[in-house]
Amino acid sequence: MTDTLTPTTVAFADRHGVEYALPDAAADAQVRADDRAHVFHSWSAQKQIDPLPVAGGDGATFWDYSGKRYLDFSSQLVNLNLGHQHPDLVAAIQNQAGRLATIQPAMASDVRGELARRIAGVAPGDLERVFFTNGGADANEFAVRMARRVTGRRTVLAAYRSYHGGSGTPIALTGDPRRWANEPGDPSVKHFFGPYLYRSAFSATTETEETRRALEHLENVIVLEGASTIAAIVLETIVGTNGVLVPPPGYLPGVRALCDKYGIVYIADEVMVGFGRTGHWFAVDGFDVTPDLITFAKGVNSGYVPLGGVIISERIASFFDDVVFPGGLTYSGHPLACAAGIATFEVFERDGILERVRDLGSRVVEPTVRGWLERHPSLGEVRGSGLFWALELVRDRDTREPLVPFNATGADAAPMGEVAAACKVAGLWPFMHFNRMHIAPPLVISEEDLVRGLAIIDDALTVADRYAR
Amino acid sequence: MTDTLTPTTVAFADRHGVEYALPDAAADAQVRADDRAHVFHSWSAQKQIDPLPVAGGDGATFWDYSGKRYLDFSSQLVNLNLGHQHPDLVAAIQNQAGRLATIQPAMASDVRGELARRIAGVAPGDLERVFFTNGGADANEFAVRMARRVTGRRTVLAAYRSYHGGSGTPIALTGDPRRWANEPGDPSVKHFFGPYLYRSAFSATTETEETRRALEHLENVIVLEGASTIAAIVLETIVGTNGVLVPPPGYLPGVRALCDKYGIVYIADEVMVGFGRTGHWFAVDGFDVTPDLITFAKGVNSGYVPLGGVIISERIASFFDDVVFPGGLTYSGHPLACAAGIATFEVFERDGILERVRDLGSRVVEPTVRGWLERHPSLGEVRGSGLFWALELVRDRDTREPLVPFNATGADAAPMGEVAAACKVAGLWPFMHFNRMHIAPPLVISEEDLVRGLAIIDDALTVADRYAR
Repeated sequence: MTDTLTPTTVAFADRHGVEYALPDAAADAQVRADDRAHVFHSWSAQKQIDPLPVAGGDGATFWDYSGKRYLDFSSQLVNLNLGHQHPDLVAAIQNQAGRLATIQPAMASDVRGELARRIAGVAPGDLERVFFTNGGADANEFAVRMARRVTGRRTVLAAYRSYHGGSGTPIALTGDPRRWANEPGDPSVKHFFGPYLYRSAFSATTETEETRRALEHLENVIVLEGASTIAAIVLETIVGTNGVLVPPPGYLPGVRALCDKYGIVYIADEVMVGFGRTGHWFAVDGFDVTPDLITFAKGVNSGYVPLGGVIISERIASFFDDVVFPGGLTYSGHPLACAAGIATFEVFERDGILERVRDLGSRVVEPTVRGWLERHPSLGEVRGSGLFWALELVRDRDTREPLVPFNATGADAAPMGEVAAACKVAGLWPFMHFNRMHIAPPLVISEEDLVRGLAIIDDALTVADRYAR
Repeated sequence: MTDTLTPTTVAFADRHGVEYALPDAAADAQVRADDRAHVFHSWSAQKQIDPLPVAGGDGATFWDYSGKRYLDFSSQLVNLNLGHQHPDLVAAIQNQAGRLATIQPAMASDVRGELARRIAGVAPGDLERVFFTNGGADANEFAVRMARRVTGRRTVLAAYRSYHGGSGTPIALTGDPRRWANEPGDPSVKHFFGPYLYRSAFSATTETEETRRALEHLENVIVLEGASTIAAIVLETIVGTNGVLVPPPGYLPGVRALCDKYGIVYIADEVMVGFGRTGHWFAVDGFDVTPDLITFAKGVNSGYVPLGGVIISERIASFFDDVVFPGGLTYSGHPLACAAGIATFEVFERDGILERVRDLGSRVVEPTVRGWLERHPSLGEVRGSGLFWALELVRDRDTREPLVPFNATGADAAPMGEVAAACKVAGLWPFMHFNRMHIAPPLVISEEDLVRGLAIIDDALTVADRYAR
């Protein structure tokens, strides 16, 4: 891919004074050689990929060995909330590595306890205890396990158009094609339709209608699957990779009410949207709802060290006062990861990150992308919150036919590939999924870079416009 | 637990000059308060535990806030192969944190590629490619997924008396009570009996007999489960937590031959025994056998940063040249973790760690623990390899009745609890499981500390002797 780009071949020092002697063709060749010979990549046919060697990063930018820089509008995998090489997180890791790099989960650790206390301090309601894991998939795995033990029930409901993790039960919870290749998975997971007004599964035409019908549908599924069999409902508060689907007003409180009515555990998957992506500590804060369990990862420490977890309500936590919780991992609550999490809290509070996200989202991103609707015929809908937005690209605004088919590959996916390539040539690394581009830059991006990145996307959309009727 | 101990209350500096102002009752109280209020612990009833707050560690020793030091004869969870705060690993993490803390798995990273190359360089046969994960459970999860895709078959065979990880399919593979509370799990996992001469499932009385009968049993299971349905056999090369069960000569080559005969993928779980525990890079090196997939974690970087993975034979890797591998995790092949892995290779090679383990194992540990058989009537059998040994405690050497029943809790488990307490009072943190104590110190332990630790265990065994007939 990079062969087709025009590199900006200047050597430079980043804002911390670290110098990069670029271009470095020898290093580039070595990284490519090692990678292709010895690294087996996720979610890929190994001969059909050409991974970009990354030489360094700083804030909202990373660069390759040619010196070409990219604005990271995907925050890597929407985890890098505080950007590349944030000095506070780097210092916290370096300091903790020098103090005590690791200690096993059965012992007590100062940083593990402090991070748990700080997470409990910002979590809604009585979610006061934290079970730490290595990442988001584990978090969902163990949240479901808690719900099953507490309720004595087995079935779990999850939504179509969702992603909950690559392993075990989480890939079975997933409502996108990544589950297909992993069937049969957990046989006790059933899928329902969530709200998505632009492509309503309920023939709704207004938000009010979508909310009411989506809740009726969910209750129908509960009743017909058998309420007495259902341990949990797992929902991304705002659906992430599958579309930045913001639930309409009333939907999540309605889910909460159904869970209460039928004795079902409400698990909010906030792996992607937790820790500031939408301008709140947790996305549920924007919907006035308190789940029984919140799963998190990514933003908790920007993925600088693998970490995830489950925040647990007192009702569920106390069930395990005298009953063994049957789960755990060697690296659960890793001190190095927790130290980076504590630093994340300090940066968020000191630098007003949440306020910043709400401000940039509502003042810069939202008016800009809504304005594009007037100029780009390929733009079917824009939606989002904070620094998390989706551009839904279509061939025809009237029929809403997607610019490329659902789960398209190869030639069928070419139009979206061309949009992505236009972004990369112009120095922006986009997040693409099916017929959508998502806007998910680090929360620390400067306003100048945000505006510049949006202008690059604005230009790239003209490529999509050529396919629109 | 610590209340009953006599603390050594001296402040001190560790060998790197880091000073510890101990005792620190205020810090101890804060860590305990945060932990009990906010940290939800693995594999536990939350009100029945009293996690030890750990203040620091150095080499084979860690200490609490009273200043009491423990020789870490469990290497935490048998992951800390290079000990606490190894300066090379700490420096590698600090350096990489300053260069590039994280980059997503779809991009190429210098340290990820280098670690993969180095692992491939010491892996047996044509195992040349590495799929990185966050830990050992994920490694087994994705190894099974590869085997299922490659064979087009579903069933996986695993051994009773095994542990393969806490999540998803790995807990279903597990052949110990941690699986029970998670049933029903993956319905395509079936269990067989592995060799364990001391408690032979085959009424064998010699190693030769045990090997032959265990292989006949395994082939019977293959034939009766239907060879054409079986994707993989998953085996810990030396069974870890469930007993340091060293396979008798010929067993693993026999498993390899059965896998070849029936087209089954042989997955060697080396999460606990890989990277030096037995004095080899991989425990299979001691048995002259090459699996199709090796899973690893723990020792690869001593768990300083969460990391695991699957080492893949060319036959399996090339299957995915043009077929998508359907799995992955946000933090797969984390640069910080990989940097610590590269440092691990450098330390192993520079300091001759493998040779050291074989020397200390055969010259110090083996003769010492075999000598105990003459003096401790509670000692039924000792077995092991390198710096990985089990002491099997019994009430009666003739009947081999275990000192405590299988999976004992509460009062039934008291005799083992007393042995553990005796070790802790004397300043050694033991690894206890059912009726066994395992010896698994960091591979960098000094000979002096190793001898001192063994003397503490020798003394503690007199507690067990009181229960022996």
